[in-house]
Formats: sequence, C-alpha cells, structure tokens
Amino acid sequence: MNICEQNQSSNLMTKTLCSTSAVMNQTLSNKMTPPEILSNWNGGSKPSFDIDEMNKLLDHDNHEMRTKFRDFMSDPCMTPRYNISLEEERDVALQRLQRICDAGFISVTDFWHNPLRIFAAHEIAAIIDPAMATKMTVQFNLFGGTIVMLGTKRHHDMLIKGIDSLHDIGCFGLTELGYGNNAVEMETTAVYDKATQEFIINTPTTLAQKYWITNGAIHAKHIIVFAQLSVDGTHHGIHGFLVRIRDNDMKVMPGVIVEDMGHKMGLNGVDNAKLSFDKVRVPRENLLNKYSDVAEDGTFTTSIKSNRGRFLTVADQLLSGRICIASMAIGCAKAGLSISMRYAATRMTVGPQGKSDMAILQYQLQQRSLMPFMARTIAMNLALDYVKEEWAKRPTDKTGHLNVVTLCCALKAIIGWHAVEMAAVARERCGGQGYLSVNRFGTFIGSSHASITAEGDNSVLMQKVAKERLNLFNPEKLEPVEADLKSPAYLHYLLQLRETSQFSELGVKLMKGGMDKIFDTWMLQESDLVQNAARSYGERLISERVKFTIDSPDTHSSLKTILSKLYHLFLIDTIQRDLGWFAANEVITPSIAKQVNEVAAEACRDLAPDALHLCSSFKLSDEMLSAPIAQDWVEYNVGDNQGELSKL
Amino acid sequence: MNICEQNQSSNLMTKTLCSTSAVMNQTLSNKMTPPEILSNWNGGSKPSFDIDEMNKLLDHDNHEMRTKFRDFMSDPCMTPRYNISLEEERDVALQRLQRICDAGFISVTDFWHNPLRIFAAHEIAAIIDPAMATKMTVQFNLFGGTIVMLGTKRHHDMLIKGIDSLHDIGCFGLTELGYGNNAVEMETTAVYDKATQEFIINTPTTLAQKYWITNGAIHAKHIIVFAQLSVDGTHHGIHGFLVRIRDNDMKVMPGVIVEDMGHKMGLNGVDNAKLSFDKVRVPRENLLNKYSDVAEDGTFTTSIKSNRGRFLTVADQLLSGRICIASMAIGCAKAGLSISMRYAATRMTVGPQGKSDMAILQYQLQQRSLMPFMARTIAMNLALDYVKEEWAKRPTDKTGHLNVVTLCCALKAIIGWHAVEMAAVARERCGGQGYLSVNRFGTFIGSSHASITAEGDNSVLMQKVAKERLNLFNPEKLEPVEADLKSPAYLHYLLQLRETSQFSELGVKLMKGGMDKIFDTWMLQESDLVQNAARSYGERLISERVKFTIDSPDTHSSLKTILSKLYHLFLIDTIQRDLGWFAANEVITPSIAKQVNEVAAEACRDLAPDALHLCSSFKLSDEMLSAPIAQDWVEYNVGDNQGELSKL
Repeated sequence: MNICEQNQSSNLMTKTLCSTSAVMNQTLSNKMTPPEILSNWNGGSKPSFDIDEMNKLLDHDNHEMRTKFRDFMSDPCMTPRYNISLEEERDVALQRLQRICDAGFISVTDFWHNPLRIFAAHEIAAIIDPAMATKMTVQFNLFGGTIVMLGTKRHHDMLIKGIDSLHDIGCFGLTELGYGNNAVEMETTAVYDKATQEFIINTPTTLAQKYWITNGAIHAKHIIVFAQLSVDGTHHGIHGFLVRIRDNDMKVMPGVIVEDMGHKMGLNGVDNAKLSFDKVRVPRENLLNKYSDVAEDGTFTTSIKSNRGRFLTVADQLLSGRICIASMAIGCAKAGLSISMRYAATRMTVGPQGKSDMAILQYQLQQRSLMPFMARTIAMNLALDYVKEEWAKRPTDKTGHLNVVTLCCALKAIIGWHAVEMAAVARERCGGQGYLSVNRFGTFIGSSHASITAEGDNSVLMQKVAKERLNLFNPEKLEPVEADLKSPAYLHYLLQLRETSQFSELGVKLMKGGMDKIFDTWMLQESDLVQNAARSYGERLISERVKFTIDSPDTHSSLKTILSKLYHLFLIDTIQRDLGWFAANEVITPSIAKQVNEVAAEACRDLAPDALHLCSSFKLSDEMLSAPIAQDWVEYNVGDNQGELSKL
Repeated sequence: MNICEQNQSSNLMTKTLCSTSAVMNQTLSNKMTPPEILSNWNGGSKPSFDIDEMNKLLDHDNHEMRTKFRDFMSDPCMTPRYNISLEEERDVALQRLQRICDAGFISVTDFWHNPLRIFAAHEIAAIIDPAMATKMTVQFNLFGGTIVMLGTKRHHDMLIKGIDSLHDIGCFGLTELGYGNNAVEMETTAVYDKATQEFIINTPTTLAQKYWITNGAIHAKHIIVFAQLSVDGTHHGIHGFLVRIRDNDMKVMPGVIVEDMGHKMGLNGVDNAKLSFDKVRVPRENLLNKYSDVAEDGTFTTSIKSNRGRFLTVADQLLSGRICIASMAIGCAKAGLSISMRYAATRMTVGPQGKSDMAILQYQLQQRSLMPFMARTIAMNLALDYVKEEWAKRPTDKTGHLNVVTLCCALKAIIGWHAVEMAAVARERCGGQGYLSVNRFGTFIGSSHASITAEGDNSVLMQKVAKERLNLFNPEKLEPVEADLKSPAYLHYLLQLRETSQFSELGVKLMKGGMDKIFDTWMLQESDLVQNAARSYGERLISERVKFTIDSPDTHSSLKTILSKLYHLFLIDTIQRDLGWFAANEVITPSIAKQVNEVAAEACRDLAPDALHLCSSFKLSDEMLSAPIAQDWVEYNVGDNQGELSKL
C-alpha cells in the first residue's frame, strides 16, 4: 500500500499529496538498492520534458565541444584524489590541464574566434577539478587573454603557441598584499632607464608584494606585472609588463623572489605565490603596448587619456575572468545539486509506520531546502548565457561597455554567493555523507568560497554595480499588475518595483548628502541599500532572461511547462527571501505576504517529481560527479573503501 | 585632520559619525604596523566596560581551571599544522589529547562532581584543535559518560581510570549506515546464548555497519555497541554492550572488522571508522546493566517499561553531548570573530581621498556583517550557560526532563548554525587572507559543519523541540508593549508573540489534520512551520536569558551598558532576519518595519568602538588564535612563510 492509498480517507491529503504530487506515488524500501530506487523514482514515470532539449538549452553554445569535453573529463585520470600532499595535488592539477590542452579543448585564440568556448571549458573543467580550472583560468584568461588583448604582434608571436601548449605558463600580477581592495594605489614601480632601454621593476615594501599569484609558486615562467610606470620622473599610472620569472629549466630568475603561499581551505592544486622584484630589468619591448608605449628615447604615448582609464583598460581581462568564475560556479552548483538530489532519492528515512521506507526527498524539509536551488541554478544559467553574449559583442560605446561591466559584476557576485549557499545547504542535507571528501561537498565549499572574493570581492563588485546602474538610472513608470502569487508576471513586477524603488531611494539619499559627502553616504551610511539595490538589479535581470527564454520561439515546446514552473519557483523564492522589504514597503499586503510560504512550498512539491530528470539534463556522467552517494552507495560500503578507493 | 574634522561642515555627518560613533575618531595609515593600529584603535580609548568582569561572566564557571587550561593550550605544541598526512594529523590529535589528560584538565568522574568542567574543557580545547576536541568528546562524554551512567560498579572499576588516562580509549557505536535518521530501527543484534552466558553481537547487513565511529579507525580498544537485544527469541529493544575491538597491542580482535573512513572536509585528526561484527561473543557482564539486565538463565529484568523508553535512556549521553558540541561551537565562534575583527581593524582600505588610510572595520559593510555575530555569540553564550545549569540539575520528573531535552536540542542546533554562518561570513569578510589555512577559517568551517549534523541533525532536533514544546504549550496572554524598536522590552515581546502565534498555528493545523494524519502534517505539509516554531522558541529563550543576566544583581555594574547594547543588537537582528513574518502577520506595522534596518545599522555603529575590547574579553591568547592576520600580518609576510611557518 503506498502513501496515497493510505491517505485516501482524507480529501485534503489525497488532494495535496497525490493529485498534485506524483512523486509520492511509489513504494520504497531499504531492501532495494539505490539504482533500483532511482530507476523506479516516481513510479518509473517519464520526465515531463525532453531531457536532451533541456540540456541543449542549458549548454547554450559549443554543443559538440561540450559533449566531447564531458566524455574526455570522464576519464579515470580525472577522478578526484584526497589525502595527497600539496606537491602531488599541484602536479595532478597541472597534468590534467596538460591533457586538456594537448586535446585542444581550450585555446587563447578562442578570444578572437569563439570566446564562448572558453567559458564552456571553464564550466565543465570545474565540475571535476576546480583547482585545475583555476590554473586554467589564470593561464588562458588572465595571463593569455591579457597578452592577446593588451599585447601586440611581438608578444603574440612570442607567446600564443606556448600559452596553448602550456610550454609558457604565466601569471597575472595585479594584487598586492596591501592593496587587495585598492589596486590603483599599488606600490610596485616600473621605471624606464633610457640608457639601457629597459624597465626596472621593483617591489618597494612588504605591502607591495604581488600576492595570491596563481601558477607562481611552481609552474609559471612568465608574469604580467602591473606596476606604476614612470619615465623621467613623470608618473603615467599602471601598466602591464611581461617579466620572466623562471628560465626554461624552471630556475627562478635573478632578482625575482618567489614564496609559496602554502595550504588553503580549498583549491590546493593551485600553486599560489607571493612575488617580489628586486630591481629586475626587462627590455623596453616587454611593455604590453597596445594602448600605451614608451619609445626608445622615453617618449610616452597613449590612446587613453587618464591614469584611471588606463588602469581600467589594463585590468579589463578581469571582466571575462568574472564570466569564467561564474561559469565555474554554475558547473559546481549543477554537480552539487545532482549529488544531493540523487542521494536524497535513495536514502531511506522514517515513514508513517516508523520504518525506514520513505525517501528523504519525499520529506518536505528536503524539498524546501533543495528545490529552490534547482530553480535558481537554472535561472542563473540562462542569465549567464545572456551575459556571455553581451560580453562577446564587446560594445565600444560608453553606455554599452558599462552595461557589460555591470552584467559581469552582478552575475559573478550573485552566482558565486549562490554556489556558496548551495554547497553549504546541500552538504547539510546530505548529513554525515556530505562531510566525506569523496562525496565532494568539501571541494565545492572550498571552490565556491574562493569565487566570492577572487577577481573582485563580491560586495565590492556590487558597489560598482549600484554605482553604474544609478548613473544609468531612468525610472520608467511601471504598470501595476494584479496581485497573484501564482502569476510570474506579478512576481516579476514586484522585482521591477523593488529595483526602481531602491535606486530612487539611493539617488535621493546621495543628493541629500551632497557631492562632498558621497563617500560617507556610500561607505558609512547606506551600505545596505547599496548592496540591496545591486542585488535587486541582478535578480530582476535574471527574471527577465528566464522570461525571455520561455517566450522565445527558439525554445523547444516541451520545455515551456517545466521552465515556467522553475521560473515561478525562482520568483517566489526570491520574493520570500526579501519578504520583509516587500511588506515593509507596502508593495504587497500582509494577507498576500502570509501566503508566500505556502505558494513556495507548493511549487517545490510540484517540481519534486522532475528533480532527478532535471539533474539528468545537466548530462554529468557518474565519473564527473565522482561521488559514491550519487551512485550505489550501499554497494560502495560493502567492503573497505578507505573513503576514496573508488570502485565505481 | 581626521575624518570627524573633515566632516565638521555637515551637521548630519558629524552627528552620525562623530558623536555617536567614537570609532571614527582616529587617524590611520598603512605606514603604521598592525600592532600600532590595534593599540591606537578608537584613539587608544579605554573599553567602556571591565574586560575581566566580562570574561568572568562569559566563562561562567570553573574560572581557575579555564585560566590554567588556556595557558596550557597556548603551548607551541598545540599550534595547528597543515599539509600533513591523515596519519600524522591523527597522531597529533591523540598526542595533544594525551597531554591534556596527563595534566588532568578533564575527567569522566567530573560527571559526578563537576559536570560543567567537562563543557568548559570542550569550549577551550575546540578553539585551537576541534579535531582533538571531537576525539575528547567521544572519549569522555559519549563513551566515558555512558560507562558512568549506564554501567555499574563492575564497568566503573574496569574502565574509569583508563578512560581518564587514555589507556582505554573507547567508541560510541550507535549510528548505522542505513539508520542515521532512524536509530531505533537499527539492525545490529545481540542474542543471548544461555549455554555460554554470552551475547553474540552481529552485523547482519551492509546498512547495519556502525558508521562514522570516532576513535574507531586507529585509537580505540573498546566500543559500546548499541544493538537489538533478544533472549530466547524475545526482542527487548536496544541496549548497550561493551565490546573489545583491539587488544592491548592494538591488534584488532577476531570477528571485528574495522574500516577507515578516510578523508573528510574537516576534522581530519579524527579517526572515523565503519565497524562490523561477525558473531562476536562477549560475556554476559558486558551488558551495561544499570537499567536492564539479563540473568545467567536468560531472565530479562528492567526498570524501564517500553522499548522506546529504554532506547531513549541508553542514548541519554547524546544530551550532554549536544552541550559539548554547542560549547565547542561557541569556542570556535569566539575565535573566528576575534580573528576577523582584529584583521578588519588593521587592514587598510580606500578612504575618502582614495588612499588606503581607513580601517575596513570603519566601513559600514564590515560592521553590518560582523557586529551582529558578536551580539549573537555573546547572547548564545549566556543562554548556553543556563542550559548547562538546567542539565546539571538532572530533573527526574517528566516535564523537567523534557524541558532539558528541548533546551539542549534547541541550543545545540541554533548555536551550530550560528557557527556555520559566522565562519562563512567572517571568512568572506577577511577576503583572500581568510582563505589561507593558517588563518583558520577553513578549520572553523569544517568543524562547524560537523556540528550541525553530528549528535543529531539540527533540523531533526528542531522537529523534536517543536513536538515537545507543543506538548507543553499553554499560551499565556501577552501584555502588549508600546512599539519602540529601541526598546528591548518591545523587541522581546515581539519574540514572545511570534513563538505563541506559531505554536498556536501548529496546534490548530495538527488538530485539523487529525491524529492519523499527524505524520503527513508534520513531515509533508508543515515542515517550515515546525522548524520556525522551534527556532522562535530558542530565540525567545536566548533573549530571556540575556535579559535575566542584565537584570541580575550578580552581574557587575560596569557590564550593564555594554550588555544592553549587545542585547538590543541581538534582538533587532533577530527581528530583521524574520521581518517578513512580523510584517505579514501584522505584528508590526509597515512604517515600523521600514525603520528596522536603520535601527540595526545604528546599533552596529554604536558597538563598533568596543569591538576589539569585546574580543579581548574572550581572553584568547595570540597562540590560541594562531592566525597571522590577528597579529602583525605585515611582519609575517616580510619573508618566506610557506603559509604556515609561524614565527609568532
């Protein structure tokens, strides 16, 4: 007798549990194996949508490459390893990256021909080895991308082949110990010596050490040092200089001091270093001179007027870097969700009779914890695809460029925070099993934490978003939509209203403070409003992109219903997370506010039958998930496994 | 010119920044060393309260032992180590625990004479080495405490000395792979063999493996196996049996199968094992027989009627275990807060002129992130002290006992979640530095995550809290208090109102569902309400205890003001976190709801000048914090440190 039959006597219960929620329509027992339970999930019923089409939608671009790359990443040599030394962990990360490069899945020249291929590589690589993907992003985006974008033919001829082959591994030397939050004030200097036609790169203080430099501790031969340029005593702001840090035998060059940063709470396959330069001389030609140059006689020329403008240009690769980071976070979110859903579907817990005969995913607690993350992950995936497209257009007008800047910053921050939260909640919902390294949440917690403070501290990025959006702010009159918590149109309207209201409030507060108080208002008085407004912008934008996707004639018809359900859950969850604001500002009435939780809970219940099918649409192989709890974890525990002797 | 002078022209700014917020009254520069900045914090002004008295209040009990233990734990041999093998990590944890035992800082006999001393040892030990503290809690509370409480003279005589000296290390064999959430259904059997007067302990299936067993993989000689007892074919429920798993040469005993669980996302100094028993025979006397016994002829006697009642009794040590876990979490929260506050005070960021001459702790963003955690940590500390006292009374009447059960469960869950959240936010607010292992947030994230699913999954404990509180629920009529967000009395009243309202609602929903639908209502329909009600109970209780402390004539007069400020911030922060509920239920009006953020922000600003002094009141030595960013992190970076060559 299944639960629906049991509950037939109660109209209320049958209605809620059985008619709306087919997921309950199954008989389980812990005598079944996890694979048996998975294949009988929801009575073995078919997905309500076309899984291949959903995969195509979420993959967005470079479909063939993604399929091949996923196969490639399912090779046993990519299986995560634990309890190995730092040295070994870094070796493994490099070897894996080498395999990927040898197979040609990423090339710095993609920036010219197919930049979205670079982001695709990041998403897939990060799922199985985020440390390797971090080394990849520095080599191909920050280092390689900067060579491509700020360098000229002489740099390209010298390095592009070696970047792709990993013969020439490089670093991106922007951050300094004392200026992580104020890079424009960095202290490293590059002084032009006319006599020898060289730049002298120097680290004047401890605070000026180049800090956190990925690939620096062991593997890199090159670094782009960002430094304050001066010629004949005149300061020209920050420029990028190519500096050799190791020779071809990997011996550290004279005057370069490399210090290993040691053990971290995650991503230990990454060899981070702090680097100092003791009056290191490099040829004049090593200035990355696409926008600024120093002639033999010391004449400085530039196509960018202000020092600030030059700084932003040389650091431009951080922008695509943020898309890389967000892509990695989306990859990890999909993997973490898949692992937790599969385990929840096969883990038996107390049923109505006290026996262990109910999947924990049937519990409302589990659904309420995990299903909103599914909706958010998919919504953010669709929005990130839009950001990629907009970035790839590389608009050169000021407004267009600033729009891309805000898109990249907002989505990087929101997706990074999402990944951190998802990893923590999913870990908790997997109980003790989630704590074993082999089940991978430690990796996801580690990598997602890195993403929220690397390539721009998320909160600082959000300040930037708020600033730029406020500049562009031109409130349009919103047409009221009839209150209905089940209507995406109404919920989207609420998000629009919140964004408009918060930016208006911020504008008024800044005006009241006056120009000379902008710093105080921004940093000391209205910090919460600044952060909230930026988030409201981001969430409204995500909503818009999901709506666009659902409405698009290009979207496969079988996906419209499931996407609409996911969209609705994304919206109601977003509203619920900030319900205090909506109620306090009388945007929604108390009586409607009181219904929000029930509507959200119902949306979770409604989506639960498709939970595993949605995971399937991510097309992550068992090898890519590489987590015993996502597979036959009973069989895995039959014998001695030492927590990581994978037999799978 | 300091910032206050700069802002003199604006009345608004001077008022907000200078008069209410003395913290801004300082001139900083990144040419000052971190220790110089710390000693000049807030213009070098004195704390607004007596630090020693605050320490005495927060320490609560066993003052002399705590002082000595902190000194003892500041020895260099306790310095955390990173990038060492699992084997070494476990060795180190055991060696440290051995030192503590040799010095007599913890004894299982404290359960008879001074149980609060055990909790004190947990708090302090966990600050510097949570893995060691985890081994400690299993040895002294779960294993040792169960021997003391469920065993009789023969067990005490055999083991108590060896427990204290670590000659006899033990495990607590409750959890099974398939029954982590339903222990009462465990499958391990203990069948009495009258012929030999032995119990035969057997693991019938893979799901019945004893799982996660701390101390089992390497260090333990004994385990208390919980198993389904049957005598002559009659089932008597779960009992505890002492089983030898290793001989004195540490050779595994015949019939016992020990498998190492390997690498985890934290606490790798703990040697967790999965254990199986192949018809292992133990003498009849190995039954822990305080409440139930089997006579030579197989006669079963018991002082507890039901199987369920016997299960709860044998697992009783989980209750004090939850206080141990909460104590460890409070210790880690204090350390994490201290590290993040000290770094925030010494880390320069962009000031009004764009120079790096403002401490990031002066930023509102940083204050709004960290100060509420200070208020919450101190409030929870005071409430936990009350739980310890109530537990130590060991009430034997049903209501008294259930009250202690709910107190332990609620505080363990709330404090555990607090520690997880605090560790993640503080890590993020420390930027990249927070990511280095040597700065310890990785450790705190790892240990706090363990705490939320060990010794009772937090959400399951909260279900228990809601159930027991609902049984005891007897709504008293609340006297309305005039709305004033600055008044603790009003805010406390809001917490009372929320608790009463949610339990009433839950009661009505259960009644409507009917007795035979209780499972469905609880697990499938009203899960959010169940969790919320339990949390509301816990938060109201915490509030009550802080209020009691402030009002108590025993509390030192110099503490009343600072405690009142902390109490107010705790309250307003708690309200803000659930503002949607208060507004949706029209408990507060929209116009008041709109002021909540500003009142909370003001409370943070107001407390910031005392932030470092509050950390000082935790009396954690530099060695116990053991984080470079909490000390002279510029000096630390002068030379090569490999991330962990502590010179401090």
